[in-house]
Amino acid sequence: MKITCSIRLLPLKAESKDQIYGLVDEAIGVIANSGLKYLVGPSETTVEGEFSQLLKLIEEIYKKITPLCDRYVLEVAFDCAKSGVNIDEKIAKYR
Amino acid sequence: MKITCSIRLLPLKAESKDQIYGLVDEAIGVIANSGLKYLVGPSETTVEGEFSQLLKLIEEIYKKITPLCDRYVLEVAFDCAKSGVNIDEKIAKYR
Amino acid sequence: MKITCSIRLLPLKAESKDQIYGLVDEAIGVIANSGLKYLVGPSETTVEGEFSQLLKLIEEIYKKITPLCDRYVLEVAFDCAKSGVNIDEKIAKYR
Amino acid sequence: MKITCSIRLLPLKAESKDQIYGLVDEAIGVIANSGLKYLVGPSETTVEGEFSQLLKLIEEIYKKITPLCDRYVLEVAFDCAKSGVNIDEKIAKYR
Repeated sequence: MKITCSIRLLPLKAESKDQIYGLVDEAIGVIANSGLKYLVGPSETTVEGEFSQLLKLIEEIYKKITPLCDRYVLEVAFDCAKSGVNIDEKIAKYR
Repeated sequence: MKITCSIRLLPLKAESKDQIYGLVDEAIGVIANSGLKYLVGPSETTVEGEFSQLLKLIEEIYKKITPLCDRYVLEVAFDCAKSGVNIDEKIAKYR
Repeated sequence: MKITCSIRLLPLKAESKDQIYGLVDEAIGVIANSGLKYLVGPSETTVEGEFSQLLKLIEEIYKKITPLCDRYVLEVAFDCAKSGVNIDEKIAKYR
Repeated sequence: MKITCSIRLLPLKAESKDQIYGLVDEAIGVIANSGLKYLVGPSETTVEGEFSQLLKLIEEIYKKITPLCDRYVLEVAFDCAKSGVNIDEKIAKYR
């Protein structure tokens, strides 16, 4: 059953705005390469997939970012429902 | 100086998916009526404005939702910079 | 290398305060049984462990809660550093 | 009616672990001086008060931190209930 997961990367030891956005772009790059459906937002990217797929994705982001940044917070919000959750049902009326 | 603020409403005592989304729509309605620039995402809405405008907006959402829902969590993430922060700089390359 | 992970469970279709706290207690029960070091806070529980241990824990919470609750949000904040992160360094001076 | 509010400060352009924790200590200092009941946790501090008191506190943290840090994210989670919410009901059994 597919659910959604919103991911926010917060580098804590960045030297510039460009470096902050550069690290965020790296994380979004991992998401884009996952093949899962996603939507980039101003402060987080929401991804749609099975729970196991999303856990694997978070692990890949961790492995990608850790060598690039001394200290960061990776926030993940899983929106779970027995009947499934998808991106469109949550924003269709606002697009 | 304008910053951004991402707002997520999580009703904890809703009876159905429709009621959850109905309450979220009420909060987005308050944001839409504020006249501030905003973008609705799958799990949060990001608004652009002065800090004082954003605090006022959060208070209005609180006053709107409290009578409608016995228990809820309202999450707010302010993205603050001396030089200002705006929605476009964060997602332009992804739209 | 050990890091910390703060976990917040938000049931969206609970009928009472007791049911909300009951579901949170179930999640804390999974954490307590993991053998990892943890600290319960008013709105989240922080756990210390290797990233792989923490991912496994999150999966166990997901498997425990999904049958018990139609719709919920599970929020996880990983605090990651190459040199490691632990609970004590973050709160020792405040205890 | 008193509610709780969990506050997390994430400096994005800090040069060291000490500077990150130094900025967090500044924010906790503002909370401590507010006279409101609070509990420091590993990744956030939870405060108890009227909604208006909590908004005022967030504004004071904003005014304190902005001159000290070029870019930061201030996350706030209000836990709201008509019947009120307090710190003890949420953690008494775990202390």
